[in-house]
Amino acid sequence: MDGGTSFFGDLLGSIAERGRSLLDLGRERRPAGAVRAAGVAELCERLLTGQGEASGVALAREILIAYRGLKTGERIAFFETLMLTFGPDAARLDKAVAAHLAAPGGRSVAELHAASEPRRQQLIRRLNLAPGATAQLVAMRADLLESLPRRPDLAEVDRDFTHLFASWFNRGFLVLRRIDWSTPANVLEKIIRYEAVHEIRDWNDLRARVDSPDRRCYAFFHPALVDEPLIFVEVALTREAPDAIAPILDARRTPLDPQAARTAVFYSISNCQRGLGGVTFGNFLIKQVVEEISREFPALRHFVTLSPVPGFRGWLDAEIAGETSLVVTAEDRAALAPLAAGVPDEAARAAARPVVEALAAHYFLVARTAKGKPIDPVARFHLGNGARLERINAFGDLSPRGMSQAYGLMVNYRYVLEDIEKNHEAFFDRGAIVASPQVKKLLRADSQQTLPALREGAG
Amino acid sequence: MDGGTSFFGDLLGSIAERGRSLLDLGRERRPAGAVRAAGVAELCERLLTGQGEASGVALAREILIAYRGLKTGERIAFFETLMLTFGPDAARLDKAVAAHLAAPGGRSVAELHAASEPRRQQLIRRLNLAPGATAQLVAMRADLLESLPRRPDLAEVDRDFTHLFASWFNRGFLVLRRIDWSTPANVLEKIIRYEAVHEIRDWNDLRARVDSPDRRCYAFFHPALVDEPLIFVEVALTREAPDAIAPILDARRTPLDPQAARTAVFYSISNCQRGLGGVTFGNFLIKQVVEEISREFPALRHFVTLSPVPGFRGWLDAEIAGETSLVVTAEDRAALAPLAAGVPDEAARAAARPVVEALAAHYFLVARTAKGKPIDPVARFHLGNGARLERINAFGDLSPRGMSQAYGLMVNYRYVLEDIEKNHEAFFDRGAIVASPQVKKLLRADSQQTLPALREGAG
Amino acid sequence: MDGGTSFFGDLLGSIAERGRSLLDLGRERRPAGAVRAAGVAELCERLLTGQGEASGVALAREILIAYRGLKTGERIAFFETLMLTFGPDAARLDKAVAAHLAAPGGRSVAELHAASEPRRQQLIRRLNLAPGATAQLVAMRADLLESLPRRPDLAEVDRDFTHLFASWFNRGFLVLRRIDWSTPANVLEKIIRYEAVHEIRDWNDLRARVDSPDRRCYAFFHPALVDEPLIFVEVALTREAPDAIAPILDARRTPLDPQAARTAVFYSISNCQRGLGGVTFGNFLIKQVVEEISREFPALRHFVTLSPVPGFRGWLDAEIAGETSLVVTAEDRAALAPLAAGVPDEAARAAARPVVEALAAHYFLVARTAKGKPIDPVARFHLGNGARLERINAFGDLSPRGMSQAYGLMVNYRYVLEDIEKNHEAFFDRGAIVASPQVKKLLRADSQQTLPALREGAG
Amino acid sequence: MDGGTSFFGDLLGSIAERGRSLLDLGRERRPAGAVRAAGVAELCERLLTGQGEASGVALAREILIAYRGLKTGERIAFFETLMLTFGPDAARLDKAVAAHLAAPGGRSVAELHAASEPRRQQLIRRLNLAPGATAQLVAMRADLLESLPRRPDLAEVDRDFTHLFASWFNRGFLVLRRIDWSTPANVLEKIIRYEAVHEIRDWNDLRARVDSPDRRCYAFFHPALVDEPLIFVEVALTREAPDAIAPILDARRTPLDPQAARTAVFYSISNCQRGLGGVTFGNFLIKQVVEEISREFPALRHFVTLSPVPGFRGWLDAEIAGETSLVVTAEDRAALAPLAAGVPDEAARAAARPVVEALAAHYFLVARTAKGKPIDPVARFHLGNGARLERINAFGDLSPRGMSQAYGLMVNYRYVLEDIEKNHEAFFDRGAIVASPQVKKLLRADSQQTLPALREGAG
Repeated sequence: MDGGTSFFGDLLGSIAERGRSLLDLGRERRPAGAVRAAGVAELCERLLTGQGEASGVALAREILIAYRGLKTGERIAFFETLMLTFGPDAARLDKAVAAHLAAPGGRSVAELHAASEPRRQQLIRRLNLAPGATAQLVAMRADLLESLPRRPDLAEVDRDFTHLFASWFNRGFLVLRRIDWSTPANVLEKIIRYEAVHEIRDWNDLRARVDSPDRRCYAFFHPALVDEPLIFVEVALTREAPDAIAPILDARRTPLDPQAARTAVFYSISNCQRGLGGVTFGNFLIKQVVEEISREFPALRHFVTLSPVPGFRGWLDAEIAGETSLVVTAEDRAALAPLAAGVPDEAARAAARPVVEALAAHYFLVARTAKGKPIDPVARFHLGNGARLERINAFGDLSPRGMSQAYGLMVNYRYVLEDIEKNHEAFFDRGAIVASPQVKKLLRADSQQTLPALREGAG
Repeated sequence: MDGGTSFFGDLLGSIAERGRSLLDLGRERRPAGAVRAAGVAELCERLLTGQGEASGVALAREILIAYRGLKTGERIAFFETLMLTFGPDAARLDKAVAAHLAAPGGRSVAELHAASEPRRQQLIRRLNLAPGATAQLVAMRADLLESLPRRPDLAEVDRDFTHLFASWFNRGFLVLRRIDWSTPANVLEKIIRYEAVHEIRDWNDLRARVDSPDRRCYAFFHPALVDEPLIFVEVALTREAPDAIAPILDARRTPLDPQAARTAVFYSISNCQRGLGGVTFGNFLIKQVVEEISREFPALRHFVTLSPVPGFRGWLDAEIAGETSLVVTAEDRAALAPLAAGVPDEAARAAARPVVEALAAHYFLVARTAKGKPIDPVARFHLGNGARLERINAFGDLSPRGMSQAYGLMVNYRYVLEDIEKNHEAFFDRGAIVASPQVKKLLRADSQQTLPALREGAG
Repeated sequence: MDGGTSFFGDLLGSIAERGRSLLDLGRERRPAGAVRAAGVAELCERLLTGQGEASGVALAREILIAYRGLKTGERIAFFETLMLTFGPDAARLDKAVAAHLAAPGGRSVAELHAASEPRRQQLIRRLNLAPGATAQLVAMRADLLESLPRRPDLAEVDRDFTHLFASWFNRGFLVLRRIDWSTPANVLEKIIRYEAVHEIRDWNDLRARVDSPDRRCYAFFHPALVDEPLIFVEVALTREAPDAIAPILDARRTPLDPQAARTAVFYSISNCQRGLGGVTFGNFLIKQVVEEISREFPALRHFVTLSPVPGFRGWLDAEIAGETSLVVTAEDRAALAPLAAGVPDEAARAAARPVVEALAAHYFLVARTAKGKPIDPVARFHLGNGARLERINAFGDLSPRGMSQAYGLMVNYRYVLEDIEKNHEAFFDRGAIVASPQVKKLLRADSQQTLPALREGAG
Repeated sequence: MDGGTSFFGDLLGSIAERGRSLLDLGRERRPAGAVRAAGVAELCERLLTGQGEASGVALAREILIAYRGLKTGERIAFFETLMLTFGPDAARLDKAVAAHLAAPGGRSVAELHAASEPRRQQLIRRLNLAPGATAQLVAMRADLLESLPRRPDLAEVDRDFTHLFASWFNRGFLVLRRIDWSTPANVLEKIIRYEAVHEIRDWNDLRARVDSPDRRCYAFFHPALVDEPLIFVEVALTREAPDAIAPILDARRTPLDPQAARTAVFYSISNCQRGLGGVTFGNFLIKQVVEEISREFPALRHFVTLSPVPGFRGWLDAEIAGETSLVVTAEDRAALAPLAAGVPDEAARAAARPVVEALAAHYFLVARTAKGKPIDPVARFHLGNGARLERINAFGDLSPRGMSQAYGLMVNYRYVLEDIEKNHEAFFDRGAIVASPQVKKLLRADSQQTLPALREGAG
């Protein structure tokens, strides 16, 4: 029973419908005299200068529909215009700088800030007046991101999108939803499409992941994004922390009675919206799911990930190739050689395992980027969130992807709610990698000598 | 049948519940060692500098609860701290200004903008991480607005709230809802409380306004504001545009079959959230309600307001008092004299009517503020939205409020969808007051000579 | 989070809307040539004999609208027709009886059953085809019940309504909903109207009962009855079982923190639908609310009622009037005399209290109706549900109603989940009144001699 | 905007959840000392005789769970017990018959009816007390139906299920829902599973049928059946009535703009619940979908089916085999011969077409069952609903199923709202087959001589 939430529940229907109606319009055939990039920019100028917003909604809608009709080149031309002619008002800015130099103070700073705001920002806010506009703007930024490699100068425009999206998609506006078999198909379809870590092959595979008693899936949604998850996490309920992914994904396994589970395993986290790249949700998601799932299953004791190590093979191959590696010995090279040829057989694995473990410990605990960060992006994410590195699982993922990224290596990160804060601070303040004793023991003696700040995790 | 919107419908339930739970916490008794203003500011500093947001949600929550425990003076002290120590980073700003002067360009401007952003803005965004925070922040700004008259310097802090709220409460995130007798009581209660134009006396009076076949009420809501209308409008469906408010509010009238209505009368528009002052919703509301209601009753032809004229008596009294008024004649004074004594009898009304009408026409069409705007705030709102001044109704509101504000004067503004754009532009570009011929005819000949730009409305 | 229920949630919207549309039609003015009672019966005949239900929905709708246009006399005439011409098919029944006598067996019995079914039942089922029909049929039966005192012969028709309603309003189809301040006003309005025990004076009084942290209200709904609670119960959360109603209803009391409550008090249960008289919901409601509320507040230990004793004064007055009462002594008469004059003062209450208590114990434990049942209808309800009589509260309700029904007497019944079954069986199998030792101790010695089967409740 | 339906919308959530929880229990492993058939019957006896329903809900739940644990043979034993020991009370019935013979009248008939009611009916009503029971009872009847071929005597038990289900699943309690791509996956999955006419191969095929702009799908639901459609219809929006199914099912076709459609084609209707066999929903569904779809697309003019003819080949083969057929000539046999060998080539189709058309006309218009009904069950359904036979489409379905059932024959039935009533009556009163002139023209002269009542359809 959930007295009183239904009124607000209904609110969203309207948003969703408005969004769909705009999308439908976007599907319409391009009219003969369609508005090209220049025309779109002109409409933008009108939208921005209209004082009373009399027809702002209609104009914003028209612009978004016209934009959808542009081809790739035209879209880039449009972004170029945004960069060149929708920056800050130069005259106003010069005046503001002069005034600030003459008499610095609260007022002059405020005017500096206002005058240096690119007009793009107000334009994007106004575009958002149209029904369903938020989804369109996110799609527009996805286009922009795609063009950045060739047109790095457009990053200036991107900054304004990022700034606004970070504000609009503030965690306070997000909603956590469980994804299960009674979720609408158009949402489930996106879970299939957006799964980035361990591919979901089809609807049966999906069902095994969201509709088994020992599986959970949660996603964040935003009220203004129709039917679109922002990020989702897949969870397995197990007795103990798993050391390999295959048994987790095995559709034919016997499901565990979730009441008997003691461990929740976050085995896949996927961002869904390319257009929201750089706006972070993952840490909030994990923490809220820990709370949610603990409430449902109070007997759960451990919250761990089973994570890929996407940077491991690249790093290791470079070490192997580097003739003077201080890390990889000749014996190591011999033991690792079979891995390059494909999935190693059991004997090869047995021979390589201690080597992989020791080098993995080095990779996580000792190796650093130029900026002094852990090399592994997934490690940066979880350690930055306050997790600790719990266990090294050599050959935890023998899939093609697992082999090609990490010679099969997987790891568990562990989230202990009461340690998150101090782990997080240790990581950011001192660059400390919080790891379990068992991980640290894997380090070879000579690696330990080169060890950066390494704070011991609570046993 | 509304296939497929229910999944999103449910999303809001969660937001609503989170909001309520925070509010509940706020009700808790103040703990003995409660956090005072200085402590709150300290927590804010921590929230702002925490790099990885590890415990951001919890910290934000703690701050908001602590804030609720502060007394008025402490709250002002807190705002003061926000002003003094959460402004822009001065050192970074100096550097940015210097860099811009040395080598102006996209990058230097971007840095200028970033460096001049008060740290308050990021703080407010971070506070919004907590469940239910948005409502709390709106309430915080209401406190701030209340303190402004005595502490005008705090306007600097207010600018940051306004900036963020304008972005968060963008029309694209608002939802229109009909308010009727099946609306939850906690929402209806707020309609009673927030009605600012024609007081709703009790639940029966409310019911007469939302549950009669010839009445409608609509409000805008925001997904993150629990059970809180932002603005609402009350509509009467009538045959013709009414010239007085009493028959509209009469609970004992016989309702009109809405299919027989040709006119929709917007007779009351009220903003609900003091903390959202300055963020405009009204024009969007009127336009969307016109669309909504036209869809329900395609036979509707006219969309008019029945509006108060809150500035009329003040202006007229000043003209009367001014010995050398060019507008008010001695005969006028005589005819108007009885009005000052209270509700005039029929004879007095008959004598005063032509005088009131002519002076009202002058008030709207000729008189201007120092900045060249119409004197009447309601006129500025509707004319700015693209409506035209349709009719002068002398003695349309004989209630104490109506008499004290406007000697009983009311007017109708009319919204013609296809003219809104050009009316709006004429108003903002040329300061033109679009009025009907019948209103213009009321102008005396000598007033017409002093007439500013006055564009003729479509017949 | 309640994944997956929203699809079905939406289903009901449609039912509700259909229901409202029919009601609206019913409000229409009576057309000149409206269908009178005879005409309605004729339409019923058509509806019943149409084989393929081609136009059943339309016909059913027409009949229900026509019925609403009938005046009281005409409605009774219509019921008369239902009785006289929509009974079982006589010829078929004769044949069935003959066949059964000739060759009794499964087939002959089945035909007997089918042939003896009044055609009314199928008619009522068919009337239910129309959108919103269920509510109309319940209203129709309310009319019928009203006419029964003058037309007891129509009870035959009523039996068919009762039979069908008991099937349609089976507990399996009912839904429990919490009623609170976020409940739609049109539902709350009915709570005000239907409260039958302790009148709700206005919306503020209602709010005190549904929106205080130490108050709860729950109702049963049926999917096909639009916005209409069937029965509701008001609950107070207290430390201990209360002995008087005034403190419970006191709007100015300080609410108890519900976490500190150990007792849930059911202080008012009201049936809402006169047309569903005789279909029992109360016992299911109490039991489900006990479960619901225990889940929300696991610290609750006691589930009691604070109940009126509507038959007490009538019984006592008769005993007093009866010259040879074996129950009421001369001293009793003297002590009770002041009660007849209105609310007694404290002294009078002190004098009368032991007498009222002893006689109340007799009333509950000894006195019986001709059929051997407890005299008090509320006692029959709660004891029949498996509760036990826990405590006698003399002068627990000094309101006019409390005095006129029971000389102020109230009682607590107590529900102990694990005893419900055996109490219930003891009551029905052996006529045992399960009462607490403290109630039994109030019995005078001579009353005890006349005591019927009285099973001791668990300490 | 759908003000006010959300409160009731939420009601269903509870029902759905209760239903699921029971189902979950049903999944539990059978406990060692599980209750066998005899034990279940014993529990039923207790449930039935408990007077006050004190523990009815718990008992009903226990019985349903125990039933799910029974194996097929035990279930039949249980049904046998229902037949033998839960029939009417024999003694009471004898008394009732005697009383009726002695003094027949309203009262004696009522008692006859009550006494002849099998106790099973009350038992089933009581079983429905348990949460989620309705779905379980429907499943129980599906078991029963399955056993009927071997145990026709159990039909006596089945009658009681049918009787109650017809009352419970009264059209007044059903809800129409559009099925589309935002429908929950667990509902869509059932659409795939239950499609009985033109198999849905996979999720892509499903999507093509429910998510194209020129396709619609609607289903009836009952509030107490969790996630379970009762019946659904698939609709194609086309310019003209189609004469073959393949183009309709072609996933690669270009969708039609639905605004350009003039015809709605009901090309598949499937019942979902075997346990509701014999309770008719189809006619209501078609009529309500016609209304629904006309509202969405006012330009629609024609409502037709594209229907299989499942009895045609059986009838025709018999005629061919019958040496003295008056219908099939030697030339016919020659032309039809190739059809028996599989899908005929174009030449064979051209040769056979006039023969198939003429014989199809005979099959529909002249041939009759022993009871004088049309032979084809689909024809009985649509003609009984008031449709008319519009067009014969030889070789409209060349799929294996289409060939094996009907030598590829399909037909269109047409629904004209204003003719439904009279067509329906003509069919039931006079056995008239309403057919279009073009169908009647296909009849050979000699067939026409043997023509039964054949009423001409409107133009």
